[in-house]
Amino acid sequence: MKSLQRILADNLKRVRAERGYSQEKLAEIVDLHRTYISGIERGTRNVSLRNIEKIAQALDLPVVELLTEPED
Amino acid sequence: MKSLQRILADNLKRVRAERGYSQEKLAEIVDLHRTYISGIERGTRNVSLRNIEKIAQALDLPVVELLTEPED
Repeated sequence: MKSLQRILADNLKRVRAERGYSQEKLAEIVDLHRTYISGIERGTRNVSLRNIEKIAQALDLPVVELLTEPED
Repeated sequence: MKSLQRILADNLKRVRAERGYSQEKLAEIVDLHRTYISGIERGTRNVSLRNIEKIAQALDLPVVELLTEPED
């Protein structure tokens, strides 16, 4: 089974690209460092709930969608 | 809107009680400190993904159910 960190990594990378945001741009919107965003997308960051919530809000997405594997 | 921390707090308290676990017992199973569990249930802890995952496994529950408001 994929770890939650891995699921979040893959989802964030995909959704961020769909939104047309660079890591820098997203980092700026959520007021986190670009290397932090990059770490999440590599699956190396043990992200906190509060930061997941901030990122989901910036992407206008329910948190749960960031933490669930896509159907297809 | 309820914060994610608040949703987790309420869900954890409810599910833990349903399982018949004390905070001590759950803390023991997931190898976290009882005051940490207590902090989550008070909504004061900014929990990390890894710990949410451990707790969900201990409760035999999908992570997403801990992070979603119950329907009723």
